[in-house]
Amino acid sequence: MNPAVRYELKHVCRQTGARLGVLHTPHGSFETPAFMPVGTQASVKTLDSAEVLGSGARMILANTYHLHLRPGEDLIRRAGGLHRFMNWEGAILTDSGGFQVFSLAKRRQITEEGVRFRSHIDGSEHLLTPESSIAIQRALGADIIMAFDECTPWPAAPDYARSSMERTLRWLDRSMSEHGGNERQALFGIIQGSTDSGLRRISARETVARGLPGVAIGGLSVGEPVELMRAMLETIRPLLPDDRPRYLMGVGTPDYILEGVLQGIDLFDCVMPTRIARHGACLTSRGRIIVRDAGSAEDFGPIDPDCDCPTCRSYSRAYIRHLFKAGELLGPRLASLHNLYYMQRLMAAIRAAIASDRLADLAGELAAAQQFRIGR
Amino acid sequence: MNPAVRYELKHVCRQTGARLGVLHTPHGSFETPAFMPVGTQASVKTLDSAEVLGSGARMILANTYHLHLRPGEDLIRRAGGLHRFMNWEGAILTDSGGFQVFSLAKRRQITEEGVRFRSHIDGSEHLLTPESSIAIQRALGADIIMAFDECTPWPAAPDYARSSMERTLRWLDRSMSEHGGNERQALFGIIQGSTDSGLRRISARETVARGLPGVAIGGLSVGEPVELMRAMLETIRPLLPDDRPRYLMGVGTPDYILEGVLQGIDLFDCVMPTRIARHGACLTSRGRIIVRDAGSAEDFGPIDPDCDCPTCRSYSRAYIRHLFKAGELLGPRLASLHNLYYMQRLMAAIRAAIASDRLADLAGELAAAQQFRIGR
Repeated sequence: MNPAVRYELKHVCRQTGARLGVLHTPHGSFETPAFMPVGTQASVKTLDSAEVLGSGARMILANTYHLHLRPGEDLIRRAGGLHRFMNWEGAILTDSGGFQVFSLAKRRQITEEGVRFRSHIDGSEHLLTPESSIAIQRALGADIIMAFDECTPWPAAPDYARSSMERTLRWLDRSMSEHGGNERQALFGIIQGSTDSGLRRISARETVARGLPGVAIGGLSVGEPVELMRAMLETIRPLLPDDRPRYLMGVGTPDYILEGVLQGIDLFDCVMPTRIARHGACLTSRGRIIVRDAGSAEDFGPIDPDCDCPTCRSYSRAYIRHLFKAGELLGPRLASLHNLYYMQRLMAAIRAAIASDRLADLAGELAAAQQFRIGR
Repeated sequence: MNPAVRYELKHVCRQTGARLGVLHTPHGSFETPAFMPVGTQASVKTLDSAEVLGSGARMILANTYHLHLRPGEDLIRRAGGLHRFMNWEGAILTDSGGFQVFSLAKRRQITEEGVRFRSHIDGSEHLLTPESSIAIQRALGADIIMAFDECTPWPAAPDYARSSMERTLRWLDRSMSEHGGNERQALFGIIQGSTDSGLRRISARETVARGLPGVAIGGLSVGEPVELMRAMLETIRPLLPDDRPRYLMGVGTPDYILEGVLQGIDLFDCVMPTRIARHGACLTSRGRIIVRDAGSAEDFGPIDPDCDCPTCRSYSRAYIRHLFKAGELLGPRLASLHNLYYMQRLMAAIRAAIASDRLADLAGELAAAQQFRIGR
């Protein structure tokens, strides 16, 4: 087997143990830790693919649930796959659809077979199973695809957390069987187990034992205290192979990303940068600002004087605030572009700090500059 | 007096009499006939200034009424003027605010002094006069500003059309007095007179007699049959000086623009290209298409195979339709960008046809290609 995706460990930070690596994919190689912007419906909201690439992002995440419902995987397959459909030359990871089925769909029924649900768009009935999730992801054609899992809600009763984790393992085997060692797409398994160390260890051992080209960690940053997330990551860390990428799903904000990096995580994704941008919130080197607030009204400087993104090079806070107040779509667009650049610059700073064995120092500097105060 | 704006007549089409010229402004020189995209609220909707410039537009229109109400001319003056506020390096024309007062504002009262009205945004009371309109436009800092006028509604009773036209002339004198020969901004007067040839001739003679650096024609394309618009343009044409630019306000669609060009018009503006784009309609070399309709669902080619705009170079009709159906803002954005490129390419084709004395031939070709069927 010649896996579609291969991870190369380059350096371990002597100050923190964080990992610097390179992920090789059929659509390019890039350094990790890396942050994936989210293109839920085959679009990173308000931005075109050239802008996303310009921010430094080399892999994006797209959502299987949304694309299955609209426009449907058959259309995307006939368009030549998701890369071509959305004109994205970098790598793509698709999730399994499981998370959205649990968070968005209506009247869902979980059985051993899979999840029956009604579309949040038109109420139509659908059945998502490990087999159909992989088949949909095959049609979409992402570089990395995810096994079908249940993202266990938090808090969960101990019995439920265990049975949910065990079902996710059985679904992993069915996902692998459906995937059949497809060499053009790398299948990642997902470690569940809620916030129970014992369950997390079982799930990690079993998932890793499958020998897949990457491992994801799901069901964290779902409402639990950050200390519990950290404890779970510490618990499973010794069980993860050094030569495979580790993906912490749905994370997140700069502080949570740093927590993950400190625990050896390589890949992250989150809608946060574009979602808060649409509400007028911008991440800056001095902490979050709400560009649509009155404080920006007469500020003719950029959102962030330390930022060289296209927004900050060309437009003032006062202008962007005006756009928001006037309901002009250019406002959310300029704020989204800025936030994507912020996230990519943050990841580049993290990678540079790992390379120079000073990630703990960087963490202190980011905290001192209030870059962790972004609101969630 | 060294006028801010100067028109240079380069060639008159031997086939049609249409004019090819160059307009020199403090923010660049460009060939005419030219089409100005509209940036109502200091933003050409969904697009950034680099994209608008990339389309070939060299002058845009911004609305005095909207900018006066929000964010206010004082803020824009302190930002360094409208060019700097919106980061637009080309030329800008601002209207007088009159048209919007009549079309958008509530509870307006017209007196000799001006127009008292309530804001459509918050109901606050305002008074717009020739003096205040010019003062607002001075603060905004456009290259070309417009005298305060009444855009006479159509149809109008003969007495009203005459008294409205006469008031517009008195307001022109007050506008000129307030302008005071400001050498950084060119003031244009506006010819009114509804669809009455006699009134149009009086208005044209009187307006031209003021010796301003440009002449605008208002109150046309406001619902009257195209034949009446054409007749009015033919009527006033012999009265207009060859060495001044002629601006047909609020026009328009490709067919109306061509009508204007054939009558010697040099400048046009309209919200149409961006407005119809937001509803999923695109102008193409084969006529209008509704990209959000089912007919685009499986069309993996561009909106227009003959178009080299950024949208057509990168994205398919099927993808753009998906964006519209999924409510993604990138859809209206890509359609708006395409339509702006279409309009600029149309104007370039018109200028080339004038230069080679074959504008009538081009008009026939455009009609045969159904490029005048765009719906209004």
